[in-house]
Amino acid sequence: MRQAQKEITVTTSGQGLYEISAAAQALARSSGITTGQLTAYCRHTSASLVIQENADPDVERDLLAFFRRLVPEGDPLYVHTIEGPDDMPAHVKSALTQTSITIPITGSELQLGTWQGLFLFEHRTRPHERKIVLHAIGE
Amino acid sequence: MRQAQKEITVTTSGQGLYEISAAAQALARSSGITTGQLTAYCRHTSASLVIQENADPDVERDLLAFFRRLVPEGDPLYVHTIEGPDDMPAHVKSALTQTSITIPITGSELQLGTWQGLFLFEHRTRPHERKIVLHAIGE
Amino acid sequence: MRQAQKEITVTTSGQGLYEISAAAQALARSSGITTGQLTAYCRHTSASLVIQENADPDVERDLLAFFRRLVPEGDPLYVHTIEGPDDMPAHVKSALTQTSITIPITGSELQLGTWQGLFLFEHRTRPHERKIVLHAIGE
Repeated sequence: MRQAQKEITVTTSGQGLYEISAAAQALARSSGITTGQLTAYCRHTSASLVIQENADPDVERDLLAFFRRLVPEGDPLYVHTIEGPDDMPAHVKSALTQTSITIPITGSELQLGTWQGLFLFEHRTRPHERKIVLHAIGE
Repeated sequence: MRQAQKEITVTTSGQGLYEISAAAQALARSSGITTGQLTAYCRHTSASLVIQENADPDVERDLLAFFRRLVPEGDPLYVHTIEGPDDMPAHVKSALTQTSITIPITGSELQLGTWQGLFLFEHRTRPHERKIVLHAIGE
Repeated sequence: MRQAQKEITVTTSGQGLYEISAAAQALARSSGITTGQLTAYCRHTSASLVIQENADPDVERDLLAFFRRLVPEGDPLYVHTIEGPDDMPAHVKSALTQTSITIPITGSELQLGTWQGLFLFEHRTRPHERKIVLHAIGE
């Protein structure tokens, strides 16, 4: 059995998708694992993970627009407002997406589909340093 | 350590849930793994995975109705419309559900609950060939 | 390779978040695994899993308020009502969150972020006994 694990830091500059496919693929390759799986795990509650299309940038734009409308800032519903108007919406958006995603490895390659990218989904307005743990296991 | 991996194809005929529990269970059994886990991974950005009740078909009907109302087609919010009115909603629905699901294996059996089924969730209107990678690991 | 697996029961008393971080961490430590990963899997379709902030209780309150408003009970949209007005909304909320979450283990510790807790998300009004399978793998 082989394993490889690495924590990466993604520096974000506001709400949006930040692709981490290359870092995940690099760990899979360097691990020496030919068949196995890689898990990405986001260590935050106001940012999350998502697999999305990485071809047309309008998809990212529309996805962000949808989430902003579904979970608006300044919503009078919230009591938890001390960390800013974008904080509680960020927690909700994180709950609505994924904190961990596991991708199979075949022939040393992540089995991402043709149009798939693995993204950190930043939900806060201000810049953040986001920590993602990548863990590969297999042989 | 034992592993087994298989890519399956699900032919879809419009929006809905397509159960893949049997294929996942078959891989778990044939792998020789008694204790471990199985990951299902959807290689698309306009279809996803969900665990849902597989007893009453009305649950599927109501789930689809909810998602259609929450993420309507023809929404003027979207810029990415060149692939049809159901494409961007499909990306959003995928983000709101799961791309990977991992189920423990005990005594060679997937630990699905009594009422649980593992489903491909097709979000596009037209028929598609969907690829799902199943990966089991354990011993 | 090492593995450890345990099914835990969480007794719920209505809608809310029930933290299971300690049980997951205990399994990781007792497994003897120093580097690996732990998967939590919820065996129900009207309860789910979520990683959320475990510091300010208002976050839980606001998260519940958001989900109650997004997926209201007594919605005329639903046909599946025989199990009560909170049942179909519970299925939808489960689909919108996660059924499995995988967390890396480093130095025998779950790599939860500083503010992260792992929670069972109960979507039903009445008390339930919820089964969650924890599975650790690594070495």
